[in-house]
Amino acid sequence: MIRIGLLGCGRIGAVHARSLGRLQDRAQLVAVTDIDPVAARILAGESGVEVMDPDTMIGSDTIDAVIIGTPTTTHSEYIHAACRAGKAIFCEKPIDLTTERVHDCIGAINAANVPFFTAFQRRFDPGFAALEAQLRAGELGQIELVILTSRDPAPPPNDYIRASGGLFRDMMIHDLDMARFLLAEEPTEIFATGACLVDPAIGAAGDVDTAAVILKTSSGAICQISNSRRATYGYDQRIEVHGEHGMLQAANHPEHMLVRADADGFRTAPNRHFFLERYAEAYFGEMRAFLDALTSGTAIRPNHHDGLRAQILADCAQESLETGQAVSIDPG
Amino acid sequence: MIRIGLLGCGRIGAVHARSLGRLQDRAQLVAVTDIDPVAARILAGESGVEVMDPDTMIGSDTIDAVIIGTPTTTHSEYIHAACRAGKAIFCEKPIDLTTERVHDCIGAINAANVPFFTAFQRRFDPGFAALEAQLRAGELGQIELVILTSRDPAPPPNDYIRASGGLFRDMMIHDLDMARFLLAEEPTEIFATGACLVDPAIGAAGDVDTAAVILKTSSGAICQISNSRRATYGYDQRIEVHGEHGMLQAANHPEHMLVRADADGFRTAPNRHFFLERYAEAYFGEMRAFLDALTSGTAIRPNHHDGLRAQILADCAQESLETGQAVSIDPG
Amino acid sequence: MIRIGLLGCGRIGAVHARSLGRLQDRAQLVAVTDIDPVAARILAGESGVEVMDPDTMIGSDTIDAVIIGTPTTTHSEYIHAACRAGKAIFCEKPIDLTTERVHDCIGAINAANVPFFTAFQRRFDPGFAALEAQLRAGELGQIELVILTSRDPAPPPNDYIRASGGLFRDMMIHDLDMARFLLAEEPTEIFATGACLVDPAIGAAGDVDTAAVILKTSSGAICQISNSRRATYGYDQRIEVHGEHGMLQAANHPEHMLVRADADGFRTAPNRHFFLERYAEAYFGEMRAFLDALTSGTAIRPNHHDGLRAQILADCAQESLETGQAVSIDPG
Amino acid sequence: MIRIGLLGCGRIGAVHARSLGRLQDRAQLVAVTDIDPVAARILAGESGVEVMDPDTMIGSDTIDAVIIGTPTTTHSEYIHAACRAGKAIFCEKPIDLTTERVHDCIGAINAANVPFFTAFQRRFDPGFAALEAQLRAGELGQIELVILTSRDPAPPPNDYIRASGGLFRDMMIHDLDMARFLLAEEPTEIFATGACLVDPAIGAAGDVDTAAVILKTSSGAICQISNSRRATYGYDQRIEVHGEHGMLQAANHPEHMLVRADADGFRTAPNRHFFLERYAEAYFGEMRAFLDALTSGTAIRPNHHDGLRAQILADCAQESLETGQAVSIDPG
Repeated sequence: MIRIGLLGCGRIGAVHARSLGRLQDRAQLVAVTDIDPVAARILAGESGVEVMDPDTMIGSDTIDAVIIGTPTTTHSEYIHAACRAGKAIFCEKPIDLTTERVHDCIGAINAANVPFFTAFQRRFDPGFAALEAQLRAGELGQIELVILTSRDPAPPPNDYIRASGGLFRDMMIHDLDMARFLLAEEPTEIFATGACLVDPAIGAAGDVDTAAVILKTSSGAICQISNSRRATYGYDQRIEVHGEHGMLQAANHPEHMLVRADADGFRTAPNRHFFLERYAEAYFGEMRAFLDALTSGTAIRPNHHDGLRAQILADCAQESLETGQAVSIDPG
Repeated sequence: MIRIGLLGCGRIGAVHARSLGRLQDRAQLVAVTDIDPVAARILAGESGVEVMDPDTMIGSDTIDAVIIGTPTTTHSEYIHAACRAGKAIFCEKPIDLTTERVHDCIGAINAANVPFFTAFQRRFDPGFAALEAQLRAGELGQIELVILTSRDPAPPPNDYIRASGGLFRDMMIHDLDMARFLLAEEPTEIFATGACLVDPAIGAAGDVDTAAVILKTSSGAICQISNSRRATYGYDQRIEVHGEHGMLQAANHPEHMLVRADADGFRTAPNRHFFLERYAEAYFGEMRAFLDALTSGTAIRPNHHDGLRAQILADCAQESLETGQAVSIDPG
Repeated sequence: MIRIGLLGCGRIGAVHARSLGRLQDRAQLVAVTDIDPVAARILAGESGVEVMDPDTMIGSDTIDAVIIGTPTTTHSEYIHAACRAGKAIFCEKPIDLTTERVHDCIGAINAANVPFFTAFQRRFDPGFAALEAQLRAGELGQIELVILTSRDPAPPPNDYIRASGGLFRDMMIHDLDMARFLLAEEPTEIFATGACLVDPAIGAAGDVDTAAVILKTSSGAICQISNSRRATYGYDQRIEVHGEHGMLQAANHPEHMLVRADADGFRTAPNRHFFLERYAEAYFGEMRAFLDALTSGTAIRPNHHDGLRAQILADCAQESLETGQAVSIDPG
Repeated sequence: MIRIGLLGCGRIGAVHARSLGRLQDRAQLVAVTDIDPVAARILAGESGVEVMDPDTMIGSDTIDAVIIGTPTTTHSEYIHAACRAGKAIFCEKPIDLTTERVHDCIGAINAANVPFFTAFQRRFDPGFAALEAQLRAGELGQIELVILTSRDPAPPPNDYIRASGGLFRDMMIHDLDMARFLLAEEPTEIFATGACLVDPAIGAAGDVDTAAVILKTSSGAICQISNSRRATYGYDQRIEVHGEHGMLQAANHPEHMLVRADADGFRTAPNRHFFLERYAEAYFGEMRAFLDALTSGTAIRPNHHDGLRAQILADCAQESLETGQAVSIDPG
């Protein structure tokens, strides 16, 4: 039984608390913390656990692992503290917005030799995971082309944009991790372009809201990614992989299975609205995978190295956007 | 080279003339006839053939076969004349609205021993034909259930309804033939129900515009048919067959392959509007099959026996509708 | 807070216990009972409640409502006991296999004036419920034709078949209730046919495994139902409704959203395997609806009257199957 | 009535001859020519026209327009000859493999002021044309992202590859034209990558068989193109356009509409095999559009300017592939 302390009682913290409620055979949530005492008390009440301050929780003998679900700017500090206390760490992506601090964190993780999980939840979506398993089983033979489509239903608030590190580090980082996951080799080159077409305020904040990227690997496999902060028809999350034997696609998840037919044709549902609905099973699956790895002592994936590599790809994408040229990716 | 005379220059006559234009390696349209001299002259002009009167055409040494595409009430007379002249016959369905006269025609056909084709074109729809071939190849194993859906886009004019012989003889007769084609055994029992829900004028004419039928065969296989004179989303023509190994479906044919996605969801095209668009390939295929059977001397299907059996099923359906009870079908 | 006693700790009892675990704001499971003490102890342990014997539980002051999830033969006895004790009742379908005993139960329910819920869970499937709401809102105008398809993935054990009351009372009763739910008027006539095509043992037990039914209402609306104990491609649960303005369909729920394309074409997932997977949300929804009706004091649907009407339709279907003729349905 | 001379009696020449056979109200095929006298005689026989040598045909008073369907290396010579003779020209794409010679041709066309049609037939696919019309009507508002997918079923022979000018000029040129057609503005920048993953012989010939391109316009709209010489599931030809109001897609055309369901799931047809099947209507439509423009005197599109712009884009793509860097496109 793994004893858990949860840092951050916001939207994603609540998701993790609920996952732990369904995993009581494996783990027990012991305490929560949040800078907002009301949020902390509400989630503590729902979960039947106590509220602690972060330092006490991280240092406490009553917990084995921490979930870091606080704002990105705080991740680094909590990671260092948890490393000092020798706790296993489940950390929301990204590890940090600057690659230097990510390197610092990785140094601490390696020195403390604590288990570390970077929460790229999409790897645990049952459909995406099954698709990846089929690729690894060789069902398509050699991979030729991976096409990833991610479109949010609507742009986030401007405050969020300004603190986000930009579309590549905030949004496309999920696709960049997925590219590595599906290709099973490191991209060596990246070209990125983008524009502000959805919301002029995003452009005013120095960011793009529409972007396209091409990655290339040393085997010659190509990955195309497109991102947008807008999709009127609901959250658009598609994967398409071409290989020598055919194609695999992971299609969108509709809100319902009704069809309406009239003179305008046949109408089916929009996609599930956004990530909490679309990736509900993935959030549960990632927590179960983290706990199972801790219990069995097997290697954790995605780990801090995966977090770093995705970050580096996002940095290179940003550099490509700014320079207008393709960027070679340091194999690290 | 088979020399053809075409009786009837209406909508379906023009379809057959065009099919012959694409089958010039097998057949030559020699002459056309129509009660309306203008219609006859137009189609003759388009086809580069002469206009004849029916008697002359049927008796002429310059033709080997006649296509009877005139109104149903005239079929019987032309069939008898063509039998006397020893011509092969391609006859639009139904052979006649009364089963007695169908028997008379069959007597004449048998006596004259002329090739006879009943134009149930749906058997030659490439999808339906492929589905039937898969059934015959045993891909589903034993057939359990056949579900046929036929819905016209809109009701025909009242004059047409009054002369039609009723929904079962006019419209469902296609499905009744398709049931025999797919089941490959004779139905032994039929139950029919119906209502006038689309157009009160149809009820006033003593007919129904919405109907459902259950057929049963001696092997226990069941067939469900539904018909309606209305479908706002275009011509609805579906087949679904269940057997021990699975299901085969023939889906509708959309007008186009565009998809539009917005806040209302995903919208695809209505079905192709009506039979001329939906069964364009079937009309061509039935003519080619007729000509090929004449050329090779192989058995013609669907023939006059098939025309009669479909007619009997329609009569039994009408009797069931009127009596409210299931009707046993005379195996003949 | 409604205090619940659960009778029956089998598969469906466990489903209800889990639903209650997600509805702790509305209700509290207090005790469970089962003829098998091991089953009772396991579910009690998982739920953190005590095991009681049925009589004690039904009579206890610590419970407000009972869930009857025991075998059908015991329903009647528990319903009478709960009525005597004045407890609200949530009862699995069917109320009883004989209509006489259903009438007896209804007499007791009416005399005791206790809330009674017949657990036709499909009414609470989000898609089906949304479809029904659109019908009631008039989106299709007048209803013309309802087509219901229900096919189980594989036949149940023979022991189950022999005790089931036959396909119409055991399996099609769900569709018969759905027909009433969607049509919003009482069927006046039914014709049923069936055959044993899937498993000869079912025929030996005097039952059919493949069946088709036509219902008709006084407005002229028609309902076609087909049932089979076999579907190699997973649980087949479809609704199609035609009305003057178009068609509404509730499509099947696939196991996943992956597509595989190769020389054999495009392959998508089989349907979710069976009722526990397909109707997971419906089981939760029916419990929430039951509790909400108890709390608010509003009318319960589906209630004992709905349970009776579905039973009568199943009886009439059985009679039609046996007599080979359409049966008029007593409006009761 | 426009009198036509056809240069080239290969596969595509035969397509055009058949189109003319269906457009006899607008045009008359007068003569054909081919370097292979047998091919010329066969098509002349089928079409009922005479065989001429190219010079005689182009210079003849009996023709108004030439169709150039010969190998690309001969286009330039015939274009110059037709310009000298003042004939309207319908020319297969590409105009020539070198942009210099394209410029020469355009000079001759402009000097002679003859109507010139570059046969990018995809613009006349009914679905693609309808999609473009919806874009021009503003249904999506501002265009944000265009995604074009083109995959051939299998690579062409090596001889073809070596003479083709490379994937960008031979295959992607269709998508580059489609990008201009859909975006309705000129791309200003292009990045291309590619690999040889399908057939090592293609790599040995100095070409790629898998490629991805990003185009950007001055409005910020982005276009992603992917091409492959292999698609096991049939010819893959898709368009997806995102704009402020939603998404439009042109889906693939299946070979048939049958669905097969069994324990492996639901299987639908592969795509129509290749361009002759997939673009049958487009080939007819482009010829009708050419003739209608000649008859009405309205502007021809796509014209020699469109041919040149697509060629320039292909050249820039090749340059980007070779340099590994994005290339600015001269607005010309």
